[in-house]
Amino acid sequence: MSSPGSAAATAILKEEVDIVIPTIRNLDFLDMWRPFFEGYHLIIVQDGDPSKVIKVPEGFDYELYNRNDINRVLGPKAHCISFKDSACRCFGFLLSKKKYIFTIDDDCFVAKDPSGKEINALEQHLKNLLSPSTPFFFNTLYDPYREGADFVRGYPFSLREGVPTAASHGLWLNIPDYDAPTQLVKPLERNNRYVDAVMTIPKGTLFPMCGMNLAFNRELIGPAMYFGLMGDGQPIGRYDDMWAGWCVKVISDHLGLGVKTGLPYIWHSKASNPFVNLKKEYKGIYWQEELIPFFQSVSLPKECTTAQKCYIELSKQVKAKLGKVDEYFNKLADAMVTWIEAWDELNPSGPKSEALPNGSAK
Amino acid sequence: MSSPGSAAATAILKEEVDIVIPTIRNLDFLDMWRPFFEGYHLIIVQDGDPSKVIKVPEGFDYELYNRNDINRVLGPKAHCISFKDSACRCFGFLLSKKKYIFTIDDDCFVAKDPSGKEINALEQHLKNLLSPSTPFFFNTLYDPYREGADFVRGYPFSLREGVPTAASHGLWLNIPDYDAPTQLVKPLERNNRYVDAVMTIPKGTLFPMCGMNLAFNRELIGPAMYFGLMGDGQPIGRYDDMWAGWCVKVISDHLGLGVKTGLPYIWHSKASNPFVNLKKEYKGIYWQEELIPFFQSVSLPKECTTAQKCYIELSKQVKAKLGKVDEYFNKLADAMVTWIEAWDELNPSGPKSEALPNGSAK
Repeated sequence: MSSPGSAAATAILKEEVDIVIPTIRNLDFLDMWRPFFEGYHLIIVQDGDPSKVIKVPEGFDYELYNRNDINRVLGPKAHCISFKDSACRCFGFLLSKKKYIFTIDDDCFVAKDPSGKEINALEQHLKNLLSPSTPFFFNTLYDPYREGADFVRGYPFSLREGVPTAASHGLWLNIPDYDAPTQLVKPLERNNRYVDAVMTIPKGTLFPMCGMNLAFNRELIGPAMYFGLMGDGQPIGRYDDMWAGWCVKVISDHLGLGVKTGLPYIWHSKASNPFVNLKKEYKGIYWQEELIPFFQSVSLPKECTTAQKCYIELSKQVKAKLGKVDEYFNKLADAMVTWIEAWDELNPSGPKSEALPNGSAK
Repeated sequence: MSSPGSAAATAILKEEVDIVIPTIRNLDFLDMWRPFFEGYHLIIVQDGDPSKVIKVPEGFDYELYNRNDINRVLGPKAHCISFKDSACRCFGFLLSKKKYIFTIDDDCFVAKDPSGKEINALEQHLKNLLSPSTPFFFNTLYDPYREGADFVRGYPFSLREGVPTAASHGLWLNIPDYDAPTQLVKPLERNNRYVDAVMTIPKGTLFPMCGMNLAFNRELIGPAMYFGLMGDGQPIGRYDDMWAGWCVKVISDHLGLGVKTGLPYIWHSKASNPFVNLKKEYKGIYWQEELIPFFQSVSLPKECTTAQKCYIELSKQVKAKLGKVDEYFNKLADAMVTWIEAWDELNPSGPKSEALPNGSAK
């Protein structure tokens, strides 16, 4: 099968992609990305003190928002956007008018493949998003749509068309994305294994979605890409992307959309402080033991045919079932509703992401 | 975490491994495997004309069985072992008294990794079998027990012990394992992508298990490794390993065991004739569209605490639900029962593979 994500196809997507970057510092890291990001539009979400001036290298096309902007744009709904946490990135998802989002952290640099060639992470993400996913049956030779690969013997023919891809989760060379306890136990561990594969995470299986190097189809799944209430004034941090990932996965499963993981790699340069991380994570670490069974058992009704409807339904189930774990989840459930209200307000005539549940979407 | 499958650990497993090879020709291919198979015991199952003499290279420790032996050993139960199909390999699984089985086809040679080093496929399979599996949650950095890897942030701590591994499915460089239609469409496609990963296939997800390069824990899952009724006198071929794989996966899921796929690669030298294959496969190709939903919906009762009990229960469900697809499945369901009777007869004092359903086994 030919790959729909050829070089020519991705080049013309410049009008359909926004790159969202949450940051608290000058964006010197963009210099390294210049060959790959030039011509694309950036949405920079400045976290922390809004009076601080963030320098962006010359030659990039960008808009920059700080906390004052968030308050101005969202008014009373601004509380749903976290402060002092990279969860603030989802404000950029809200403002974008593009079909695809690539979000990347400012400590992520261009990685090299085993041949020494610099990896165009954005191009690979777009390839992943433009080719179908295969969530209903596992293909042992990984992505069947990739050049030189296909479905293996025994793969049902009725499933070979695949389903639309909602999200593409990229990985990290150098500093792996470990939790604080693992960072403490293995301070020197580095990831230098380049695994040359992209795969669909099967339907019904949850995964830990990291927000460092992530792309998604905003039309299909954008309303579910909410990074929750983290950081300043909240009892928890560093679970923003995990929360979004669990929501995205159960909603993608319900809508018959796919989520991929694997290529592309970025080079993650700096491990965050494990002691600080432990403080941020520790409630997440034990709450998670209740959150996972909750998400594993979530069932959405047939009437939920859009990401918005699914997300509102999910917020109700969060309140009903997780509210008793901690009062925090009642607050989070309310914020989920506020987020969707903000989404609908800022995206009034946006493309309708009607998808058929449990089947091939539109 | 340290890997339980160190070199020292695998060296001593010579007493616990049988290598099972189905064949119709002289086993010259073993010469290339000599550095890796020497000292291990081989069980060779000769298919086709029993009067033909199969030559085995000097220096290997082996036993060889042909159709006459199968009839002699199994008597009236011999009909459950296929004739003129590589499905006959499961006779070797039945006769073995070892804990681990590695089965390989005689057109599979030693592959090289990207550094040019010859791959010890058996050693990698044993590493896979000796380290736990993680079927309940997806780890984005692949096998978390491998050196240089671990569980990523957001992976529930309660699931990090993993579960025992029942089977290890290896892959193929050069000739990929395609069905006849794909072989016909892409006669020149070769697999030259070395993906440096081992992963657990998530619970609830089916996969196409190929018997070419496969290892398993005979104590845990042996009774489910039945390759069905194929070849001579049967309406179907080339679905023997697929059938076994679907049974193994649903039973492993029920018993709380893991199934891995990925490394090791072998070099698959010769594509079988696609026209002949099409004739063998064609009923499988459309029956499969009913078999997959059947296996996806199989539910085994709590009382099924061993692979044997699960397999007998599965045979009943095959008869009840697939008998109406074709009379063949009634015959197959009966053969599944015969297989278990033969297993119990030949393994009377075998280790009890009691495992707890849906949790950590013994």
